[in-house]
Amino acid sequence: MPGVLDKIEKANDIKNISPEEYGELAQEIRDFLLEKVSITGGHLASNLGVVELTMALHLFMDFPQDQLVWDVGHQAYIHKILTGRKEGFDTLRQLDGMSGFPKCKEHDADAFNTGHSSTSISAALGMARARDLQGQHNKVVAVIGDGALSGGMAFEALNNAARLRTNMIVILNDNNMSISENVGGMASYLGKLRTDTRYQNLKSNVENVVRKMPQIGDALMGTMRRSKETLKRLMVPGMLFEDMGITYLGPIDGHNIDGMLAMLKHARTVKGTVILHVITKKGKGYRYAEKFPSRFHGVNPFDLETGRSKSKKVAENYTDVFSKKLIALAKDNKKITAITAAMPSGTGLQAFKEAYPKRFMDVGIAEEHAVTYAAGMAKAGMIPVVAIYSTFMQRAYDQILHDVCLGNFPVVFILDRAGIVGSDGETHQGIFDLSFLSNIPNLVILAPKNDRELEEMLEYAIHLGKPVAIRFPRGTAYTGLQEQQAPLELGKSEVLQREKDIAILAVGSMVKHAEKVVDLLREDGLSVTLVNVRFVKPLDRALLKDLAKDHTLFVTMEENVEQGGFGQAISSYIEEVQLPVRQVNFSIKDQFVEHGKVYELYKRLGLDPQSMYGKIKATWEVCSQAEKFSDDISGK
Amino acid sequence: MPGVLDKIEKANDIKNISPEEYGELAQEIRDFLLEKVSITGGHLASNLGVVELTMALHLFMDFPQDQLVWDVGHQAYIHKILTGRKEGFDTLRQLDGMSGFPKCKEHDADAFNTGHSSTSISAALGMARARDLQGQHNKVVAVIGDGALSGGMAFEALNNAARLRTNMIVILNDNNMSISENVGGMASYLGKLRTDTRYQNLKSNVENVVRKMPQIGDALMGTMRRSKETLKRLMVPGMLFEDMGITYLGPIDGHNIDGMLAMLKHARTVKGTVILHVITKKGKGYRYAEKFPSRFHGVNPFDLETGRSKSKKVAENYTDVFSKKLIALAKDNKKITAITAAMPSGTGLQAFKEAYPKRFMDVGIAEEHAVTYAAGMAKAGMIPVVAIYSTFMQRAYDQILHDVCLGNFPVVFILDRAGIVGSDGETHQGIFDLSFLSNIPNLVILAPKNDRELEEMLEYAIHLGKPVAIRFPRGTAYTGLQEQQAPLELGKSEVLQREKDIAILAVGSMVKHAEKVVDLLREDGLSVTLVNVRFVKPLDRALLKDLAKDHTLFVTMEENVEQGGFGQAISSYIEEVQLPVRQVNFSIKDQFVEHGKVYELYKRLGLDPQSMYGKIKATWEVCSQAEKFSDDISGK
Repeated sequence: MPGVLDKIEKANDIKNISPEEYGELAQEIRDFLLEKVSITGGHLASNLGVVELTMALHLFMDFPQDQLVWDVGHQAYIHKILTGRKEGFDTLRQLDGMSGFPKCKEHDADAFNTGHSSTSISAALGMARARDLQGQHNKVVAVIGDGALSGGMAFEALNNAARLRTNMIVILNDNNMSISENVGGMASYLGKLRTDTRYQNLKSNVENVVRKMPQIGDALMGTMRRSKETLKRLMVPGMLFEDMGITYLGPIDGHNIDGMLAMLKHARTVKGTVILHVITKKGKGYRYAEKFPSRFHGVNPFDLETGRSKSKKVAENYTDVFSKKLIALAKDNKKITAITAAMPSGTGLQAFKEAYPKRFMDVGIAEEHAVTYAAGMAKAGMIPVVAIYSTFMQRAYDQILHDVCLGNFPVVFILDRAGIVGSDGETHQGIFDLSFLSNIPNLVILAPKNDRELEEMLEYAIHLGKPVAIRFPRGTAYTGLQEQQAPLELGKSEVLQREKDIAILAVGSMVKHAEKVVDLLREDGLSVTLVNVRFVKPLDRALLKDLAKDHTLFVTMEENVEQGGFGQAISSYIEEVQLPVRQVNFSIKDQFVEHGKVYELYKRLGLDPQSMYGKIKATWEVCSQAEKFSDDISGK
Repeated sequence: MPGVLDKIEKANDIKNISPEEYGELAQEIRDFLLEKVSITGGHLASNLGVVELTMALHLFMDFPQDQLVWDVGHQAYIHKILTGRKEGFDTLRQLDGMSGFPKCKEHDADAFNTGHSSTSISAALGMARARDLQGQHNKVVAVIGDGALSGGMAFEALNNAARLRTNMIVILNDNNMSISENVGGMASYLGKLRTDTRYQNLKSNVENVVRKMPQIGDALMGTMRRSKETLKRLMVPGMLFEDMGITYLGPIDGHNIDGMLAMLKHARTVKGTVILHVITKKGKGYRYAEKFPSRFHGVNPFDLETGRSKSKKVAENYTDVFSKKLIALAKDNKKITAITAAMPSGTGLQAFKEAYPKRFMDVGIAEEHAVTYAAGMAKAGMIPVVAIYSTFMQRAYDQILHDVCLGNFPVVFILDRAGIVGSDGETHQGIFDLSFLSNIPNLVILAPKNDRELEEMLEYAIHLGKPVAIRFPRGTAYTGLQEQQAPLELGKSEVLQREKDIAILAVGSMVKHAEKVVDLLREDGLSVTLVNVRFVKPLDRALLKDLAKDHTLFVTMEENVEQGGFGQAISSYIEEVQLPVRQVNFSIKDQFVEHGKVYELYKRLGLDPQSMYGKIKATWEVCSQAEKFSDDISGK
């Protein structure tokens, strides 16, 4: 028997469903999500929480003319279902399959590309303003979580919205969580709004008390009303927003479709920006996700019955290695502190928090503040370790440059998920960090080849007394090359195998690939040197000069875009001192990289061992022929 | 007769001055500032506004153990005077002279390096936390303007401070101005706090009314007090901050030293972060600066009597050229909008605002929001032009990448003050933009050689339908080379003079230098080609290949750091396709660049025509000898 969900084949179809069927539809959507995501993996808890909210928005809005901007965007699965993309869930987050985030190019009902946090109000405000200027009248709605509201950009946007007085609705989707629990003044304020009956019942309480007094009561009300503002302060929750000049409505139940729809219609009649505070439950409708929303935020394929992950973790990942080592180092060094921007679990700092709660700080989704806060700590004598995913560190470029490196303060930056991250796709690939970090003076940039080297680099960085960035990839830590571990020395690369002719200079995660490439080249009888770069900055210039004596081909390998990366720094040095070598630069050529499995993307980008081997081989053949030719004509 | 100011020879000396002399000292400081800054130029109005505030802080704090962080930092002149740096004002902002901003390396009472906005609360919070962890008890104070409070980072820091409950005082220096007038919800909220007697007299009003009622009055007070929060809402201003969990004190008069000192002492007794709202008058004590605070924000040498600038503007600068052309283009193209982050005058958009008020937007000091707001506008059909100084655009790196370029939306970025900016020094040099922009896919990067080319590039960018960045330097627009103006074509450089042997590829402002270099080289009988690069991205690969046919030396010139810049992209291409050329890369070698006059800094960095000529000549001699040698041994 076809269900209600079967009636949804394209955007706006939900409007043909009778209100009596809303409950059934919500249930079918949850069942669909659970069935699909338990197979493919993906973001679950946040989507289960916004089933009714998304339905209400789709009943309220008309696509594509109305514009709905999802902040972060991992909670847009129901939006995808309701715009006719059910089939996409079979290929969710897979190579050439449907993205796990809103994509303008995927569907015209996806108003904006999101992935990073706290951008939705800004983008929606721009759309609302463009609408006004063009004399249009479509609706513009941004949906932002309470966690994302701690990002400064959201505040900048609200500050601007207050002045613009353009019609826009901001849904504050409040589940009291970002990925982990929320922190900070705003979170505690929202907590009060959510739970404090004083706020909710204030109006009736005060009015009743005052009015009960005959004669005097009316006089007093009059006195109090002399200032409308004063009265408002007493009676309206959300004054923090109202103080800024933004209308606040709520809080309301985010699982009551009729209630939300009524409130949305009301919000539409209010002039200017309206914040509609909606309370949702993360993981709603699936008991494991309700109980462990953090664990069910982003999931691998799992068993629906038990809630257990199907993929077993067989080995330590780099995050674990970092986490353990930092805790060990902090035991004896009381100057070490650890800072996360709302990702204690993802960055491995949860264990640090438990071990040294006073030296731990979760600043909320606020990468800029995290970095400058660390600068202040470092200036005042501590050694802060700031752990932020590579892609989110993009937010703090200016703070790293202007607040940390200009002062040469000893902050250690940990860039987890550097390189290809896989299924999260183009908004999350950590492929720009070597570029945006390398241009910053005073900064030392490190990339470990394996688990043990990460430990040593962390210890090294903490003692260096300068700003240092360590970048490592997502996933299982490489455990090869344990026997090789030359001591770390500033600006010195590690020569793993020294031969001649071809020198491979591999950065971090690429050392593992380079090992395979070396094996393949040697099978062909070629002579190859393998260098673990270690220091992307400063460069090991002495080694490069030395290698140029008996190598004619330099091969650079990095999981980063070409422009501004390691390979270009090598090209530049080759030109500067006129090294008599040719270079092959393996990196990502000026593009955003979509979702897919990491190994699939390596292959597509030509960064897998086999592709690199092929290209080196071909180049070498050209080189050696040219050399032979040159030898011939010069009479050697 | 020695004045009171003569008694100030080092930090903390102010504490030896009797309270009766405070007024005299304030007057002498103002006279000193006016005398010095009228000669050297510098930031004036903001410093005149904080004379008493700085004095109160220096009476309250002990240096260097206490930590005082000035947001932005251009208002720290009195702090410099009171810490024994009077002599420095003779060399203010001059090469190897005293910086116009706080510098840790300049004095141990300068707690932090500032220059960019909205960083002070973050840094101070880090210092306060470090103090707590180290069991120290020094005072930590951040001074932030009301303008800087619109920066999202400041909000992120307050949000974090609310939770940390560490003792710290944030002085909100409210003069109702950033550089220009303030905008946004926060500004209007502060305006209410400042002026609304309802807020200031609320407590007494309500209490009086209620208490006047015998018997019932007390009962009512009791009823109202049932909720302490409720009462507080009625009686306390600054609830926006209190709602976040931060104690708010004020507003108080920022020109009353005794009052501020008493309040600072009180603030010290409050647990957690305290915001002390201080009202100051920008330009205080100098009538021209009081009347025109914006004009006297940053000044060139001026006549004290008349307030008139001594340096006459003789020619149009690039900002003017941009401003006029944009207004002309916007006349016929209704899709064009203009966005500034609190700098309508500096960016030249003030005139646009007057011409097209609806299409203009000043978002406040909020570069991140500015960019994503523009992305939203562009997505919804407009063509926004975002004009932000190069150094401040660093703040929006992630927004340019993730919100604009990933979606390939047609936003035009105007990076004014790109390259060496001169006397503002290391926090303000625009020498990183080519690096942080070049690694972003989809972005087109342009640099004009002269005034007319800027106009054409702006028109070109607006019609391109893609994200485009145009960068140009501070100061007078170059008016040479008017006769040469090939039409703009995507990714095509302009060959200004075609000879052979040496090819100079000059970016934007460097074309003017390159012309002189070409003349010098030709005088030596050398053959030189001059290329106006125009497109830093995408590169004109076809031209490079073509030039390599009859040139053996490529010279690249850019006002940008080496790493990730134009020259490295050229090195990389030379390596990639094995062009048989040598390269000399003129750029800034991995360093922060201090203050000084622009031409002095060029010289120090080796970017002046004479230095570049010398290096090219020397390299060419080596090249031609090597070539000769190579010809000899190959028997040619």
